[in-house]
Amino acid sequence: MLHSSPTSAPQYRAVDLIRRKRDGQPLEPDEIAWMVRAHETGAATDYHWAAMLMAILWRGMNPTETAALTRAMIDSGSVLTWDDLDAPPIDKHSTGGVGDKTSLILGPIAAACGVPVPMVSGRGLGHTGGTLDKLEAIPGVRVALSTEEFRRLVRRHRLALIGQTDEIAPADRWMYALRDATATVESIPLITASILSKKFAEGIDGLVLDVKTGDGAFMATLEDSRALAESLIVSGRALGKRVVALVTRMDQPLGRQVGNAHEVAEAIACLKGDGPNDLTDLSLELAAEMICLGGVEPNLDSARRRAQGALEDGSALEVFRRVIADQGGDPRVIDQPEAILPRPRGHVLIAADPSTLPATGGFVAAIACRRLALAIMRLGAGRALTTDRIDHAVGLELFKKVGDPVAPGEPLARLDHTLEPNDPRLVHAHRELTACWSFAPLPIPNPPSLIVTRLANPNE
Amino acid sequence: MLHSSPTSAPQYRAVDLIRRKRDGQPLEPDEIAWMVRAHETGAATDYHWAAMLMAILWRGMNPTETAALTRAMIDSGSVLTWDDLDAPPIDKHSTGGVGDKTSLILGPIAAACGVPVPMVSGRGLGHTGGTLDKLEAIPGVRVALSTEEFRRLVRRHRLALIGQTDEIAPADRWMYALRDATATVESIPLITASILSKKFAEGIDGLVLDVKTGDGAFMATLEDSRALAESLIVSGRALGKRVVALVTRMDQPLGRQVGNAHEVAEAIACLKGDGPNDLTDLSLELAAEMICLGGVEPNLDSARRRAQGALEDGSALEVFRRVIADQGGDPRVIDQPEAILPRPRGHVLIAADPSTLPATGGFVAAIACRRLALAIMRLGAGRALTTDRIDHAVGLELFKKVGDPVAPGEPLARLDHTLEPNDPRLVHAHRELTACWSFAPLPIPNPPSLIVTRLANPNE
Repeated sequence: MLHSSPTSAPQYRAVDLIRRKRDGQPLEPDEIAWMVRAHETGAATDYHWAAMLMAILWRGMNPTETAALTRAMIDSGSVLTWDDLDAPPIDKHSTGGVGDKTSLILGPIAAACGVPVPMVSGRGLGHTGGTLDKLEAIPGVRVALSTEEFRRLVRRHRLALIGQTDEIAPADRWMYALRDATATVESIPLITASILSKKFAEGIDGLVLDVKTGDGAFMATLEDSRALAESLIVSGRALGKRVVALVTRMDQPLGRQVGNAHEVAEAIACLKGDGPNDLTDLSLELAAEMICLGGVEPNLDSARRRAQGALEDGSALEVFRRVIADQGGDPRVIDQPEAILPRPRGHVLIAADPSTLPATGGFVAAIACRRLALAIMRLGAGRALTTDRIDHAVGLELFKKVGDPVAPGEPLARLDHTLEPNDPRLVHAHRELTACWSFAPLPIPNPPSLIVTRLANPNE
Repeated sequence: MLHSSPTSAPQYRAVDLIRRKRDGQPLEPDEIAWMVRAHETGAATDYHWAAMLMAILWRGMNPTETAALTRAMIDSGSVLTWDDLDAPPIDKHSTGGVGDKTSLILGPIAAACGVPVPMVSGRGLGHTGGTLDKLEAIPGVRVALSTEEFRRLVRRHRLALIGQTDEIAPADRWMYALRDATATVESIPLITASILSKKFAEGIDGLVLDVKTGDGAFMATLEDSRALAESLIVSGRALGKRVVALVTRMDQPLGRQVGNAHEVAEAIACLKGDGPNDLTDLSLELAAEMICLGGVEPNLDSARRRAQGALEDGSALEVFRRVIADQGGDPRVIDQPEAILPRPRGHVLIAADPSTLPATGGFVAAIACRRLALAIMRLGAGRALTTDRIDHAVGLELFKKVGDPVAPGEPLARLDHTLEPNDPRLVHAHRELTACWSFAPLPIPNPPSLIVTRLANPNE
């Protein structure tokens, strides 16, 4: 005889859950899980979710709710498993900035030190660049690997860099598209769940977060950046993961190169020990955090020495060369980046506007980071819309960064472009870029350090 | 030679308008008009609007925005014109209550006094009844008239009562459905625009509003009811209409009959001069406001006398008889309502719970109005869902209202139903209804007056 067993999943109505959130009441984890699943079944449509997202932006979510949302988004897809690795896999995520090519440096360093890094990355949009776009500046590189290829490369090199697959947190894709269309992107719990769901679906044990703050960051104020870092830490812990977050300044480009081929070249230089100090220092620090989280070294000091060693002995560079080759790229880019990477058609030097620089010269006081990035985005270095195509050869080399002395007429940067010399877009970009630098008559005393603060789970 | 002329309509993006409202910034009238039109074209989808509605519920709208939204919703359809009438058309709208059958009384009174009343009404939902459902308790009555029939009846009798047509404020229909699904009903600017757009699309010159307050009203608190009344007045004025609002108590049913046939019978009794005082007084007061707004009498005192006269001389009753007949109903309902209206199958008397009434008797202190209405709704007198069918014969006659003395064992009300005597729903309804009355040992001193306050445009 057949028994009809009562269904174990409680049934909810989207409108009731929206009303509760609207009225500032927390939702239960089961309710949040239902609401995410219900988007698949049609019980919660795009318009239900649009109202819910606006209510969440308004009322917020407590840590339990944020963790439940993250969990539900992870569970919307499949989670990679890595039982066959010799150490726990660890990844890093940056909230996005200008000139931030640390993934291309710390990934090889951490892998060279014994930490498996199954890195699923994103693409650039607006003023921020994306690791996948940068990698694709290397001729031949493929980032759309199958899960099996990805697994094989991570086992072989402890590192592979791929794009998001259909299986990884599919709920994040529809939810992000809906947030983008409904002005509900800027919500700390929603940002937290979006970041963590994609990263934890990689099957990692620990995550190092680089939360940018300042004009070139997604979060402009330190208060917001710190709140996001705390939310990421707390939710990550609630999901049983080891998480460390560094809040770092993004009030001028990181390093001296901005643009896709430009940043690959600078990352390679950095792996050869020839990178600018800010980029090298931040990459080593983030790599050291990964090495610690992965349990390869017992403390940050020994992890820093180990990371430094992987740079000095060339082992990190060697990992990068092999990964590029195994992902279809031309490995000669390591030895002759200028010969292999796409080249610009011309360049324009950017000099200080005489009306803003003291007649006897001065010092760079600030660089309008977001404005700078948008100016070169419009020439092809980035995307205004997700459907725009990237021109990998377009970019900027900065000669003068904050604190540097500048003599009248001295160039501040070189804009590399692929336009005809008389293209009006060049005139506009030149004007925009010139306006990005501001000056002080005297040296800047005690410039603030790049790393503002470090947050971690207890005992990390 | 052809010239391509610049388009006159500025182009917007839904996401930008949502973001502005989200951030608490007012929208321009042109932007609001675009956003409403864009739902037709697809440039603003249901999910854009869902987020916008939640942002409006959160941030509110100023009077200019509310008026612009109302205007945009009116303009989504067509507006009736009444150039051939001998006086400006006026209507009344109630925000909904229990036992509120004033439309069936004041419509005939105002029409008999010379005020054209092109009344487009709604249906009941939840605890509130609807004028159309009540009318349809009269065998044969049709409320789905064509615009031409409607015009003809209003010209002939100065009164017709119909349901919303496809042409009247179609934006209100999709917007209300979306609000209902996304928990964004309870927003004063959205309620204002919904009410005014439907009414002003009737082509009326003036509108009298009965804003209910209390347990049986949509707005339970006096503060909210007053705010809604003010919003209606201010937006109505901004749209060039003469508007008066009375805030009236809905903390017990209006009159003594609740249910569809029940309320028709009580309205007819009222038109014969045999109605309960609260119902008669409020109907006369609202009719007097309409007579004043329509310019038929110069002040409220003379308008009240005129309305009273139309009751006493039977002219209002005669208008109602003719309108019913011309809308297909059986006009014998006027003289023999019991014979013509649908009849219940049985009845149950409701008596006081001995544990709540003092042993020596007492006085009715309060009647839980919403709970009472929901109890008889479940027996068929109303709708839980818009798709539910009404049973017009189901209803309640109240013998005891607030302030009335009650002896032990004395019946409080008679529930008329159409169920088998042993139906468990009857037991439940009996228990629910019994719990609606509460008592005090002493008479209630100075019961509050039904009309709390009156708001009007300047100079009304």
